[in-house]
Amino acid sequence: MALLTSPITLFTAAKCFAKSRIGLTGSVRNLMSKQLVYGEFGDPLHVVKMREVEVPEVGNQEVLVRMLAAPVNPADINTIQGKYPVKVTLPCIPGNEGVGVVEKVGEEVSDISPGNKVIVTKPVQGTWRNIAVFDKTVLRLIPDNVGLVEAATLTVNPCTAYRMLSDFKPVKEKGLVVIQNGANSACGQNVIQICKAWGVKNVNVVRNRPDIDELKSYLKSLGATYVLTEEELRSTPIFKDKKLEKPSLAINCVGGKSSLEMLRHLQHSGCMVTYGGMSREPVTIPTSAFIFKNLAFYGFWMTVWNERASPDAKEAMMSELITMITENKLKAPVHKMVKFDNFQDAIGNALSSKGFQGCKYLLDFNN
Amino acid sequence: MALLTSPITLFTAAKCFAKSRIGLTGSVRNLMSKQLVYGEFGDPLHVVKMREVEVPEVGNQEVLVRMLAAPVNPADINTIQGKYPVKVTLPCIPGNEGVGVVEKVGEEVSDISPGNKVIVTKPVQGTWRNIAVFDKTVLRLIPDNVGLVEAATLTVNPCTAYRMLSDFKPVKEKGLVVIQNGANSACGQNVIQICKAWGVKNVNVVRNRPDIDELKSYLKSLGATYVLTEEELRSTPIFKDKKLEKPSLAINCVGGKSSLEMLRHLQHSGCMVTYGGMSREPVTIPTSAFIFKNLAFYGFWMTVWNERASPDAKEAMMSELITMITENKLKAPVHKMVKFDNFQDAIGNALSSKGFQGCKYLLDFNN
Repeated sequence: MALLTSPITLFTAAKCFAKSRIGLTGSVRNLMSKQLVYGEFGDPLHVVKMREVEVPEVGNQEVLVRMLAAPVNPADINTIQGKYPVKVTLPCIPGNEGVGVVEKVGEEVSDISPGNKVIVTKPVQGTWRNIAVFDKTVLRLIPDNVGLVEAATLTVNPCTAYRMLSDFKPVKEKGLVVIQNGANSACGQNVIQICKAWGVKNVNVVRNRPDIDELKSYLKSLGATYVLTEEELRSTPIFKDKKLEKPSLAINCVGGKSSLEMLRHLQHSGCMVTYGGMSREPVTIPTSAFIFKNLAFYGFWMTVWNERASPDAKEAMMSELITMITENKLKAPVHKMVKFDNFQDAIGNALSSKGFQGCKYLLDFNN
Repeated sequence: MALLTSPITLFTAAKCFAKSRIGLTGSVRNLMSKQLVYGEFGDPLHVVKMREVEVPEVGNQEVLVRMLAAPVNPADINTIQGKYPVKVTLPCIPGNEGVGVVEKVGEEVSDISPGNKVIVTKPVQGTWRNIAVFDKTVLRLIPDNVGLVEAATLTVNPCTAYRMLSDFKPVKEKGLVVIQNGANSACGQNVIQICKAWGVKNVNVVRNRPDIDELKSYLKSLGATYVLTEEELRSTPIFKDKKLEKPSLAINCVGGKSSLEMLRHLQHSGCMVTYGGMSREPVTIPTSAFIFKNLAFYGFWMTVWNERASPDAKEAMMSELITMITENKLKAPVHKMVKFDNFQDAIGNALSSKGFQGCKYLLDFNN
């Protein structure tokens, strides 16, 4: 592995050996972490390698976490490819979210204890490793009754869904209707469930497929008011027949024709929030929609919200989401656990066009 | 003229004859108004006819105005074509703005006097006539030292420019840079002049043309910081070379490639306001611009602002614009006066593709 010969890695390794050894099992030994790492941007199947390194000593403000699970998200893939506009220092351990159990805390850490379940709440060098030392400020305690996958995937998709439903139109307060495309995506499933928890009616657009009835049933079981294929959306009578008010908020992760069809159904003075572009086509907006329908168009990126939000705003969101999970109102997306050693299966799934909209793969460090 | 046989016209005429006669010259006679009118939507050159009708008596809350000038705006043309989303009752006198001199006021009108110069501030049945009776609430006094064309064209283009520069980004307060396309349009010329009056740097994009140097000189004389052709915008070094901060506000009346090129130069978290679509192409927005540049996109329509704004907000805007005019900071767009009898020349100009971006034609009632 060329990576192990890079100056930074050698330096890190040297630093590790210079520190005192941590004994976790009672016997004196070096604690070793298996971690994924990439030293250059490129095809994740080629540039991401597994390595084993000694875990450094836990600093006064630090926490040693034995990781349980971490998802492979599109943003992780794009970061490794060098296509994501977040700058990382190479070599880099991928993974932006995940859950673990605290093994040991530094001397100045008082609010986290060994045995606690914690999630990683900020992009760090990274979650795809079985043992990690994190600064205490990037960790958040999670109640034990939050499921493993729900906890591992809490900080990206549910938070994105929550913010898009909160920050652009008062959908909860005013009972406005929401429409979204890519409704079967991991984020889309969260949008549906939060809408249901809030009593917000929602129209969900998906691409047609052989098992469309099964998908519709699944999304309705989550709380979808309507599920329509893109073709059905074009001619749906639900708005004309007053079965439903026209939507005031459209949530777009597809672009192209799909976003155009959605905006045609928007209320006067409605808005569309774009957080993805799965079709790889831009959002196209007729001038009349701007001027005569007074529509507004925004983007949303959780990374920027996290940078700008107050601790209080973050805490309010997290505690509401965690309450939803513990009350069984917010379930994890369709997912599959992949043993850490088989990480290439998880990466390969995320790289396939199906991976981004189908089943979320998580790395399972418990092996 | 088929129109004169329509029931509504006959009714109006009957009503006029039933009222007492107004003598303006001292001799007893019916006061007759020459007015344009259309009874069906369609090609303005065919459906708009001139007719002569008796002017009704001035009601207690009304004002008799001898019109001096009224512009032919794109919105007037689109309304006649039936393409504008403002519902008018047919038959309809076109014209949404104009200036005149008060001839007579109703008994309950105290703040307007004969001899005052007034403009029409609300869409009414309409300004394309040489004598009209208006409700006092739709008129606004204009100082005598405001030029004829400036007054006649005050309520649409300068107000649109003023609002777009005020309501989306604090360009004046924070000295942000503005970029606009269609910069030689009537509204664009106002954007430039208001920017100059406020000390706001502005980048102006125009289509290339044989007399481009002349156009650039003219726009610079109005206050343009930079004037670039669409080709020059693509490769301009002014932002890279730090001659100018990247724009925070883009004003778009073209759409298509032109709006796409503008948004590429926008600052992070900038926005684009669309008020026209001269290319007849939609606005196309890459997903990355939404998510990673956090751009927002809005429409602006003066009609809706007028419906929603408070009287105070309207007065603040009008008095600032009138002050700019009297201080010679806001000049009328390039224009041509057309004798009222030759109204088809003015309509024909607005219908040509050149009319919408070149010379503004005004009906001159003083003949």
